[in-house]
Amino acid sequence: MRTETVGAAGEAEVLRRILLRLGPSTAEVGPGDDAAVLRVPGARIVATTDTLVHGPDFRLAWSSGYDLGWKSAAVNLADVAAMGARPLALLVALAMPDDTTVAFVEDLADGLRRACLALAPGCAVEGGDLTASDTLTIAVTALGTLDGPPVLRSGASPGDEIGLAGHAGLAARGLRILFERFRDADGRPIPVDSAVLGDDDRRALTAQLRPEPPIALGHAAAGQRATAMMDVSDGLLLDATRMATASGVSFDLRRRSLGSEPLALVGGEDHALLATFPAGEMPPGFRLIGDVRPRGAHPVTVDGEAPAGRGGWDPYADWDSGLG
Amino acid sequence: MRTETVGAAGEAEVLRRILLRLGPSTAEVGPGDDAAVLRVPGARIVATTDTLVHGPDFRLAWSSGYDLGWKSAAVNLADVAAMGARPLALLVALAMPDDTTVAFVEDLADGLRRACLALAPGCAVEGGDLTASDTLTIAVTALGTLDGPPVLRSGASPGDEIGLAGHAGLAARGLRILFERFRDADGRPIPVDSAVLGDDDRRALTAQLRPEPPIALGHAAAGQRATAMMDVSDGLLLDATRMATASGVSFDLRRRSLGSEPLALVGGEDHALLATFPAGEMPPGFRLIGDVRPRGAHPVTVDGEAPAGRGGWDPYADWDSGLG
Repeated sequence: MRTETVGAAGEAEVLRRILLRLGPSTAEVGPGDDAAVLRVPGARIVATTDTLVHGPDFRLAWSSGYDLGWKSAAVNLADVAAMGARPLALLVALAMPDDTTVAFVEDLADGLRRACLALAPGCAVEGGDLTASDTLTIAVTALGTLDGPPVLRSGASPGDEIGLAGHAGLAARGLRILFERFRDADGRPIPVDSAVLGDDDRRALTAQLRPEPPIALGHAAAGQRATAMMDVSDGLLLDATRMATASGVSFDLRRRSLGSEPLALVGGEDHALLATFPAGEMPPGFRLIGDVRPRGAHPVTVDGEAPAGRGGWDPYADWDSGLG
Repeated sequence: MRTETVGAAGEAEVLRRILLRLGPSTAEVGPGDDAAVLRVPGARIVATTDTLVHGPDFRLAWSSGYDLGWKSAAVNLADVAAMGARPLALLVALAMPDDTTVAFVEDLADGLRRACLALAPGCAVEGGDLTASDTLTIAVTALGTLDGPPVLRSGASPGDEIGLAGHAGLAARGLRILFERFRDADGRPIPVDSAVLGDDDRRALTAQLRPEPPIALGHAAAGQRATAMMDVSDGLLLDATRMATASGVSFDLRRRSLGSEPLALVGGEDHALLATFPAGEMPPGFRLIGDVRPRGAHPVTVDGEAPAGRGGWDPYADWDSGLG
């Protein structure tokens, strides 16, 4: 069917069809995990790319250049960390409308630099590309190095304990605050006035706009026998389902261990690290949130019960490109 | 001046301002050459990124998905080759409108795979990202490995000979054919009917839509004492000026050695390799096009004379995003 669109087919199907055309990977780890792993003489290189596009991924009324620089670095560094690697360098391809201000771009560069300094000292932007475009687009590639084998999604075994480092549901609450409190009567985004927010809401907003994934813990977990690891970008239930399925096991999560955050199970964009460890070997920085069981009827249960649908709240599904 | 736009400032100034914010590079080669060079224990990794954006970089009426996949691979592989490296892997970030057909994306994947097979066997797409966007955008990152030090733009010495591998002006003639022969009365691109073209014009069109830079010669040149090398993407005069300036020398080019192609000096997008070698040591695949002299009044002369302006023809300067 030559007329089927990517919108109708959906991301997973489009990806599947692309991979069929690309043929088998010759890398140590090809497409499908958080990052590719490439063997070179004497080293293993981790490489990943993730793009922020105006509209689907951010709104300029809500995110400053600094926020976007920070976030585009953080989300890519998290994918490097999720393989158990140490970040090495970023490349940044910026496609911008001509009327973008230079001041905005300078703020974006500041955000990139500050995120690297804070989250992955020693890693910096070492290359990039500038292009004109009608749509502001920030495509970042992150490279990292591994000391040993990568930590894949597929290595969890029954009896392992499940750990989480970083937030669960906080960034999604921040996004909800933006949609509920910073839009005008027509639904258009309006600038954020964080003075009207309490400390807790402000913290959620920061988690959404300038996430701080625990990058150093990825490499540390690899050195401490993590059996599987991934970056939680699409919500804990969905990403845990992916990891359990890739590992051929089931995960049982404890709701209480996730705290009182209402979107803890379904909220995306926290870029926490989800990892499994042999029982009793979870390193500092990870908290115990469940255990790995032999494959059962459901890839993921919560307190022993199958969760009721994906649930949650997905405002970007309603994205209208006419809105700021 | 907080309101200055990137359109008014221009690419070079925006890049300069970004680099000021990013701070000093810690890589072996940071921003400014064809690619970054990163040292890891036991290896040197080359990394570069280049983006094709609908409008400024291509028109869907003229380029098929296959063409775009091919070209986005080729231009990035050329930057890896220009450092003297061997291509290792590509990452591809695709941002697409929802109404893009899956068939188009499959063609694009075919083009990526075929370009790798033809130009850099052993290199393949090993990762990527899919995003929705109002503007079709293909951001490719290419990685490569070096056996020894990279070949920079800055290493040419007086007495060296200047070599070129690949076309000069052919891709620009192909672009001229598109603009002159495949637009409707309102200036909008119309599909290419290559049956109406002679063999020579068809060859120029192919050089524009599916360039074949001499990728393997980059690594070969590095092994054969090339003193400087770069990818000619913006036209021979302009890129030779960059290389001569970076090396602190002057280049004298011989017009006759460039053949009869009218845009040989100013046409971009051929992605030929421009390199300098000690006298008498130019390897097969490169043709002698001039020699390196001590720095003179002009960074580049042609047959001993300063060229008259950039000249040439730059249709994309007139790009109107309302046109297909």
